[in-house]
Amino acid sequence: MSGNDKRIRVGILGASGYAGAELVRLLLGHPNVEIVLLTADRKAGQHVGEVFPHLAGHGLPYLMSLSDVEWSGLEIDIVFCALPHGTTQDIVAGLLHATGRGLVDEEQVGLISSLKSDVKVIDLSADFRLDNLDTYAEWYGHPHRAPSLQTEAVYGLTEFSREEIKSSRLVACPGCYPTVALLPLVPLLDAGQIDPHDIIIDAKSGVTGAGRALKENMLFAEVGEGIHAYGIAHHRHDPEIEQELSRATGEDIIVNFTPHLMPMNRGILATTYVRFANAAAVEDLRDTLERRYADEPFVGVVPEGVAPATRHVRGSNHCLIGVFADRIKGRAIIVSVLDNLVKGAAGQAVQNMNLVCQLPEVTGLQQVPLFP
Amino acid sequence: MSGNDKRIRVGILGASGYAGAELVRLLLGHPNVEIVLLTADRKAGQHVGEVFPHLAGHGLPYLMSLSDVEWSGLEIDIVFCALPHGTTQDIVAGLLHATGRGLVDEEQVGLISSLKSDVKVIDLSADFRLDNLDTYAEWYGHPHRAPSLQTEAVYGLTEFSREEIKSSRLVACPGCYPTVALLPLVPLLDAGQIDPHDIIIDAKSGVTGAGRALKENMLFAEVGEGIHAYGIAHHRHDPEIEQELSRATGEDIIVNFTPHLMPMNRGILATTYVRFANAAAVEDLRDTLERRYADEPFVGVVPEGVAPATRHVRGSNHCLIGVFADRIKGRAIIVSVLDNLVKGAAGQAVQNMNLVCQLPEVTGLQQVPLFP
Amino acid sequence: MSGNDKRIRVGILGASGYAGAELVRLLLGHPNVEIVLLTADRKAGQHVGEVFPHLAGHGLPYLMSLSDVEWSGLEIDIVFCALPHGTTQDIVAGLLHATGRGLVDEEQVGLISSLKSDVKVIDLSADFRLDNLDTYAEWYGHPHRAPSLQTEAVYGLTEFSREEIKSSRLVACPGCYPTVALLPLVPLLDAGQIDPHDIIIDAKSGVTGAGRALKENMLFAEVGEGIHAYGIAHHRHDPEIEQELSRATGEDIIVNFTPHLMPMNRGILATTYVRFANAAAVEDLRDTLERRYADEPFVGVVPEGVAPATRHVRGSNHCLIGVFADRIKGRAIIVSVLDNLVKGAAGQAVQNMNLVCQLPEVTGLQQVPLFP
Amino acid sequence: MSGNDKRIRVGILGASGYAGAELVRLLLGHPNVEIVLLTADRKAGQHVGEVFPHLAGHGLPYLMSLSDVEWSGLEIDIVFCALPHGTTQDIVAGLLHATGRGLVDEEQVGLISSLKSDVKVIDLSADFRLDNLDTYAEWYGHPHRAPSLQTEAVYGLTEFSREEIKSSRLVACPGCYPTVALLPLVPLLDAGQIDPHDIIIDAKSGVTGAGRALKENMLFAEVGEGIHAYGIAHHRHDPEIEQELSRATGEDIIVNFTPHLMPMNRGILATTYVRFANAAAVEDLRDTLERRYADEPFVGVVPEGVAPATRHVRGSNHCLIGVFADRIKGRAIIVSVLDNLVKGAAGQAVQNMNLVCQLPEVTGLQQVPLFP
Repeated sequence: MSGNDKRIRVGILGASGYAGAELVRLLLGHPNVEIVLLTADRKAGQHVGEVFPHLAGHGLPYLMSLSDVEWSGLEIDIVFCALPHGTTQDIVAGLLHATGRGLVDEEQVGLISSLKSDVKVIDLSADFRLDNLDTYAEWYGHPHRAPSLQTEAVYGLTEFSREEIKSSRLVACPGCYPTVALLPLVPLLDAGQIDPHDIIIDAKSGVTGAGRALKENMLFAEVGEGIHAYGIAHHRHDPEIEQELSRATGEDIIVNFTPHLMPMNRGILATTYVRFANAAAVEDLRDTLERRYADEPFVGVVPEGVAPATRHVRGSNHCLIGVFADRIKGRAIIVSVLDNLVKGAAGQAVQNMNLVCQLPEVTGLQQVPLFP
Repeated sequence: MSGNDKRIRVGILGASGYAGAELVRLLLGHPNVEIVLLTADRKAGQHVGEVFPHLAGHGLPYLMSLSDVEWSGLEIDIVFCALPHGTTQDIVAGLLHATGRGLVDEEQVGLISSLKSDVKVIDLSADFRLDNLDTYAEWYGHPHRAPSLQTEAVYGLTEFSREEIKSSRLVACPGCYPTVALLPLVPLLDAGQIDPHDIIIDAKSGVTGAGRALKENMLFAEVGEGIHAYGIAHHRHDPEIEQELSRATGEDIIVNFTPHLMPMNRGILATTYVRFANAAAVEDLRDTLERRYADEPFVGVVPEGVAPATRHVRGSNHCLIGVFADRIKGRAIIVSVLDNLVKGAAGQAVQNMNLVCQLPEVTGLQQVPLFP
Repeated sequence: MSGNDKRIRVGILGASGYAGAELVRLLLGHPNVEIVLLTADRKAGQHVGEVFPHLAGHGLPYLMSLSDVEWSGLEIDIVFCALPHGTTQDIVAGLLHATGRGLVDEEQVGLISSLKSDVKVIDLSADFRLDNLDTYAEWYGHPHRAPSLQTEAVYGLTEFSREEIKSSRLVACPGCYPTVALLPLVPLLDAGQIDPHDIIIDAKSGVTGAGRALKENMLFAEVGEGIHAYGIAHHRHDPEIEQELSRATGEDIIVNFTPHLMPMNRGILATTYVRFANAAAVEDLRDTLERRYADEPFVGVVPEGVAPATRHVRGSNHCLIGVFADRIKGRAIIVSVLDNLVKGAAGQAVQNMNLVCQLPEVTGLQQVPLFP
Repeated sequence: MSGNDKRIRVGILGASGYAGAELVRLLLGHPNVEIVLLTADRKAGQHVGEVFPHLAGHGLPYLMSLSDVEWSGLEIDIVFCALPHGTTQDIVAGLLHATGRGLVDEEQVGLISSLKSDVKVIDLSADFRLDNLDTYAEWYGHPHRAPSLQTEAVYGLTEFSREEIKSSRLVACPGCYPTVALLPLVPLLDAGQIDPHDIIIDAKSGVTGAGRALKENMLFAEVGEGIHAYGIAHHRHDPEIEQELSRATGEDIIVNFTPHLMPMNRGILATTYVRFANAAAVEDLRDTLERRYADEPFVGVVPEGVAPATRHVRGSNHCLIGVFADRIKGRAIIVSVLDNLVKGAAGQAVQNMNLVCQLPEVTGLQQVPLFP
């Protein structure tokens, strides 16, 4: 059977958030996918078109409360979890018949457990990204409630874990900030061209990275016409970035990661300041990245002298990277951009689903960016 | 041969403007189209990816000056003209072997004339929208230079002229404001449910409707954090709207059309204030529009009580319409929205191309809107 | 004693909202005012500089819970109420020693009652704007709880009620939409130049008009890059506008008022569509407005052909009005703009305070607009 | 004679740009200033209220062409130059009777020379900021045309050059980026607490820093909903920042300065990454800055844990600084913000004028920031 004929039955948990809606948008254009379940506890009973009018009119199922789902009969192949951090781990434990030590009641897990035994989970939350149980507990304030799954989960930075993803039943999709930071840094650390102990990542993000939750600092009037840094030196994406950089180098890496919130809906730009190692020069960095990403469909290095801009990847699964000489001798500047809701969330998740389902990786992901 | 196998060779004149870029974006996803020519006089010699980095990397032809095009050999089937108003008419005259009284030199027209004799032109400029030669001269300040073509051209409001478009070799695509105004008004006038002499169209537009030309009032700092009306009672879309409303009613219609410029990239919202005719009520208007657009793929009536928003059609070819009772007895309020670069320009143009080429009308146009 | 030496002791109730913060901004620059009390129940104990960092560092009092205020000893002359609609009426009843039928407990009212017997209240809520008890109950869903004060309060559209305001102890400041609508309409109705039964007010507002409360539709991502209408034909400013227009004409007026929410922080623009009465022409309307506002410090008519823009009044107490001929015979278009937080709220409130305190009306209100 | 009675006659050259308009806004509120001359070559003959409607109605002089100014009789005390870089040096040479080697014709310089012999010039351009003639020539592409004045000019970073400014006749006001970078860095370098050879300045700016000139990349549609870096490692503010840091340390300093353009009108935020020197810790840095700025009216250090935001200084002459520990040992993060048109341009210029004129430094500069 060719990839084109394969039918994949998909459920999306947490379809009333921005990442959930973006999954719906992308999957509606995916030739192999049928969306058979959408959950959203607080909007249960509504059509997704009421919650997100841009998604009206595609014959989608109504939003359900997770506890009302009758899993048997849905024949779901893939579950996307776009749920808040913390609550995800119990639910995924149920989905995967794993032994949790959960807060979710037995009955609910029992219901979940009635689904197909070979279901795969693509998780967009932070719950399964960190390998180390202690690090998780330190940054999230409680012990992990599904530790065996935490260990089992594959960190889904697609370009670096294709084989593991293909054979995984639980993919933990990277955060938006880690994605934009890791894509340029991992190959350079692999090549030994930059000093792992002098990495400064100054990131600028639009608002959708923070989700649709009601917070005063996300009101239009609080974000419009301004910029500020937040989570300085204690953002939860710190340990995630450091874990992956440490994996790349084999030593413990601490980085500077300083996110800023700015008035745009979509997009992240990271300006990363690095120091050369092993007598590398800016051309070497560029060369490494160009070779590493030459055959990648979604990651590209822009021509010399061009500065990547978030608006040039809006709505697409692309990540663009530029490399620049610094005025300070021995240093370079790397600029990387992506759309936080696509390559930084739903797009990378679909890319991982394609791998898990043995489909061509680009299926349903070839949107040309929307500009202006 | 099925529609799916058909190959259409397309040229885009004026590919360095926003409408031209949007044509490229849409046509890159069109399964039957091959883009074989892109012109842009001031950017000639550059790749479209230099001018519009979001369009880099698709194997597109380089931008050429129009006068450098060697038409023979290109085997072009469809030419999209996204050129400034005024200059279009000479060029189209050449393209269609028509007798112009043009300002373009003979040589250039001669070159153009060497293209296929059955080429079709989809024009996005205002040059061929007005039927009446005097009206054109009055509003554009000079006599039309290709008057026979002005008469021949079909006004391409797709939902109302399908048959004429299918057999036309010159389609004049409506302006963005006329499209958003006419889609709700024409069926209501057809039904005799509103007074044609008391129509007030208050429109709010993003900036891309004005194109990429350098004007002080289009600088970010001049548009951001504010709104103003412009072209009050003398916008060039006035006669275009009035022509089509007059065509619908058979009498001369004068309307109020008041456009406003606001800080967003894409989108138009028209709030139209109408008075009932023939004892109609708000339910009748809703009913007329719902029936008229029930089978239309790109025009829809939102549920009662829902207010259409531009952000719910962004990047898509959709037009959404809502109908509301007024507090003033005998009056109603209609709200319609679309993306000015898609349904208001490039999308409607592709929709017309599909008709001209006997393809399914929705081909390449089923993008789900991008929100947020 | 000259105005310049007068000291006014001011309290602001509800200082953690946008209108409250704008009162603080303006009063910090007012030469006669000392701010001696700031209340904000949910932020009690914080400094206003924590809640609004732009107001840090002026020696202001800490925010208190209203119920913790010890009124005796504060010697307050003027209380500004920037509290939510509905809760204001009980508190003002207490402040003014009036008999309420309130929900606030006796004790609290008792505490409030211990303040100076000649305190004056400038209210920014909607609680005292409507004269008619039934209209209030109909639009706000409950009977008014301080009906004698409702009758006593002066509607504080400064330019039309100076003498009443000067001698009032309770001024109900108009809403932002009513202010921008009434300033052009009242003189024209007074002059009998427009038909009172054919008035359409299409208003476009920034987000701060909705306050700082947490609502999903006020998140940046829900407002950015888009526009929509809301409250169509049932906005609570409808009866307020109609009350004042009816007062001007002596007959019951119903108007169309359609507000739109757009992505900017400050500013309202109203485009008002009117029909001439008594053979008036556009020049007559312009003449009436120019003469009416010739000596007003804060309301102006822009030169012919100029379109007022919200950005030209940002941060100032100005309202600008333009008058334009319509293409439809017998009609005109009026555009008016103001900053909703200044002339539409805090600025007009200070203007009224100046009157109440027998100070020059412009004191502390001569900020030049901030552009861009 | 007290400061309050002093009258200063001011001319503004280049009043049709954003910095010029901001000078007008601030000086209209300055109690000692009378604006007697406004020049704007391309808008000559218009009233400033036509070019900037927010400045209409203050009895200001009409805009003149510089070459039409009749200097004698104007009795100007202070000339603000808000002219483009490059053209300023000839004009200032004329104003100050200096020997230029100019491109301006003799006649014009002659006319200029007829003004008061004790006129003082406050220059907002880059023409007189660099001390070194070679550095100027290298970065601006031509030898300076008024080299003696280049040497004579005082670099007007007010907080660091008060005494020189007071006795100067030519103050070169710092650029907006240098101001936001130098205010935190100079005291820390003075104190020897940071490594001068490892300074990374990541700056984010609104659009008005680029002025009102017509450039495609400043169109709303090119800036909205996005961010990008520009001038990476070759921005003309590089040598200016380096000159002042080198002055502070006595050795040649090279820094990383990476500016980004983002969608807001006003504001700059600099996130500066530094390495400790001499065993300093983050508390030491904070302490140094707090003590240095304890008595400064316009520069402040925010409380620990607070992140400065551009929106908290909008429209004001304030610069706010925050200091944060880095996760990388031995490093710190400094965030500084200001309004590029005020403290970064016109406000600092007025502050310098106050010094030059022996007025209290804060005169006319005590605007409370405008938020939201």
